[in-house]
Amino acid sequence: MSHRTGAVLSIGDELTLGQTLDTNSKWVSDRLLAHGVVPVEHATVPDDRAAIAAAIRRLAERADLVVVTGGLGPTADDLTRAGLADAMGDQLVEDAAAVAQIEAYFRARGTPMREINRVQAQRPRRGVCLANPNGTAPGLYGVVRVAKGDVDVVCLPGPPREMKPMFEAEVVPRLKLEAGRHVMTRALHTFGLGESEIATRLGPLMDRDRNPTVGTTASQGVVSCRIRYEGAGDGASEIGKIETEVRTRLGPYVFGADGDTMASVVLDLLRRRGEALSTVESCTGGLLGTMLTDVPGSSDVYVGGWVTYTNTMKTFEIGVPAELITRAGAVSREVAEAMARGGRERSGAAHALAITGIAGPGGGSEAKPVGTVWIARSGPGGDEARKFLFVGERANVRDWSARSALAMLRLALIGERGVKLGRQVE
Amino acid sequence: MSHRTGAVLSIGDELTLGQTLDTNSKWVSDRLLAHGVVPVEHATVPDDRAAIAAAIRRLAERADLVVVTGGLGPTADDLTRAGLADAMGDQLVEDAAAVAQIEAYFRARGTPMREINRVQAQRPRRGVCLANPNGTAPGLYGVVRVAKGDVDVVCLPGPPREMKPMFEAEVVPRLKLEAGRHVMTRALHTFGLGESEIATRLGPLMDRDRNPTVGTTASQGVVSCRIRYEGAGDGASEIGKIETEVRTRLGPYVFGADGDTMASVVLDLLRRRGEALSTVESCTGGLLGTMLTDVPGSSDVYVGGWVTYTNTMKTFEIGVPAELITRAGAVSREVAEAMARGGRERSGAAHALAITGIAGPGGGSEAKPVGTVWIARSGPGGDEARKFLFVGERANVRDWSARSALAMLRLALIGERGVKLGRQVE
Repeated sequence: MSHRTGAVLSIGDELTLGQTLDTNSKWVSDRLLAHGVVPVEHATVPDDRAAIAAAIRRLAERADLVVVTGGLGPTADDLTRAGLADAMGDQLVEDAAAVAQIEAYFRARGTPMREINRVQAQRPRRGVCLANPNGTAPGLYGVVRVAKGDVDVVCLPGPPREMKPMFEAEVVPRLKLEAGRHVMTRALHTFGLGESEIATRLGPLMDRDRNPTVGTTASQGVVSCRIRYEGAGDGASEIGKIETEVRTRLGPYVFGADGDTMASVVLDLLRRRGEALSTVESCTGGLLGTMLTDVPGSSDVYVGGWVTYTNTMKTFEIGVPAELITRAGAVSREVAEAMARGGRERSGAAHALAITGIAGPGGGSEAKPVGTVWIARSGPGGDEARKFLFVGERANVRDWSARSALAMLRLALIGERGVKLGRQVE
Repeated sequence: MSHRTGAVLSIGDELTLGQTLDTNSKWVSDRLLAHGVVPVEHATVPDDRAAIAAAIRRLAERADLVVVTGGLGPTADDLTRAGLADAMGDQLVEDAAAVAQIEAYFRARGTPMREINRVQAQRPRRGVCLANPNGTAPGLYGVVRVAKGDVDVVCLPGPPREMKPMFEAEVVPRLKLEAGRHVMTRALHTFGLGESEIATRLGPLMDRDRNPTVGTTASQGVVSCRIRYEGAGDGASEIGKIETEVRTRLGPYVFGADGDTMASVVLDLLRRRGEALSTVESCTGGLLGTMLTDVPGSSDVYVGGWVTYTNTMKTFEIGVPAELITRAGAVSREVAEAMARGGRERSGAAHALAITGIAGPGGGSEAKPVGTVWIARSGPGGDEARKFLFVGERANVRDWSARSALAMLRLALIGERGVKLGRQVE
């Protein structure tokens, strides 16, 4: 049957027990959808032969293609091979070509194949081994017969470094896509409005029986509107119409689309003007610099900055007067402004962002509770400072602080300085 | 029935479609296991009422407790309330107390409750609302009757900031633990050895039929050995014996246990000596400072530092001679050492760590491929520099760089400077 829907199964005690975070399912799902296969379920089961076989059969009932990751290693708790064979009603046999490949893998690394690795060359008799140029575990391809018909199952190794290339090389060419049916998605990212305010503004656009559909997801203050088209055309014009509508309703809060991050958008805006940026961070301790330098190629815009975690660093490295810190307090409009001005002057960059606040859990007071953060911006169009009161744990306060600093700069660069941001109190 | 096993269900199109990474299931599983409830399956289904109800019933057949996250928001695609009611064979009613709580939540923020949020106060008639002090979505508790008996189901909001406190406050007190059965876990964290080297060193300790069991998990170079006891006693002496054995076999590579991070361990070591630390970062762009300041109370040890992303910043801010950069290159032993010395002198801290490297994807050459990183340390016991060749994507190279810098300082502080680290080439 053609692969209209997919299911993703992850295998491993370390996953079910919560010791390791499963990132494979998200990645595989994202790739399936890009090819027009809609993922309808993820499941994770332990290193247990019966549980693996049952999960494969159950997911085969539910979807047209099952992608399994993990459990293909050489040790006694790697049971995906046996689980697949059971689900197929088949037996394991040794694949001579796979043995040769594993031997070659070891030979290239100057050691003989360990006997323990031989088990990795086993496959269901009616199954096929998939080559793994990046490790010892071959993948597996098999067909499971369920009530509705034959369903394809592919098993990939757990390590992402081996799994991802095998997906591209061995799974993508095996996808059976329905002729004349396309799935297209587009994500628009916003910052500064809450999810319910966005839902209110989008109104009927979010009705579930429309095509394209619009849904929202929120993460660290970034609310993303996800537009999804499914149908006979390529969906470009349908998606484009809804995108225009969403942008109209959300205005300057939309900062980017798809792979954009707030940092990448700010860097692009600055790059186009040929202007540089520096940072002066107190409570974020380098997180703003980290977000900026997460973006490849940031070095042509971002010159670097200071982590002025102590008052001494604030005074001696970027010239915030000690007297000012004593008078106004390290977390104040005055000190934030002096940090931004100092960073701009010392670095020679056209723009500087400065953050000073109380990330918690300690250090709060009645006048300045945990979550109080002053963010200042200094740039060619003039300076500004805003006060925020962020909620949640230390990590949240720091994350929102760094993102709000980027948002302030972005709004200034697009001529929307007047737009108020979420959690802003002054 | 008592909660011997648990299952975790995550809800959301953004999860099944691979647009958002599910971190809740790992967190919930880890917490369940800490309380003695063994998680046996994770599942993720879309915002689809029938799929949610079917998944809840299926997992109730499989486990003694089902924890659901997500789908409790105010919009049309938030269907967990209805799905739970269907699984219970019940109907939704409005909970007056929950309406009052949501109104109070808005009032505290100076705005009236939006009409769209009223739906969040709905619960199955035989269910119970769980208070949410951190958001508008109350949690839900209900009982699903399946063949083996009555199974407890709790539904928590998706945002971790709301989910985690609700788990602690509302789920933990509802856990029905089996009398006389305890689960105790202990994690020992290592850095600098690969997972297969650790497996070889631990040998028979990792056999699956032992109690306590020992398993390993790896993340960003940190390989954790997880010891788990399950039985009638409290397990303290059994775990203690295995811990001693693991520490003997892995020596100075074990840097901490349970909640320790490399940064928290280094900060503790410095705090005990009353010595301060500063950082000078190039390719990591602030990530080392971020890791240090992730730890609450880091300000009594970490004074801050510099992000010297450009050569100009390296020269003018911490005094690396421009001539040296031209001669040796920005990524070189000489420049790394000059960065560390400069950081130490300018900050007045007893210790400084400096990182300069090529994080990629661009910027590599034959002589200095992507992943080449020099890390230098300057301190009272003398200076040192090491060269690494990290593999993988930009984010990996940056993460390993920051952790390796912390590892170098830790080894120096415990008198183990001679220990070689993973990926170290010089």
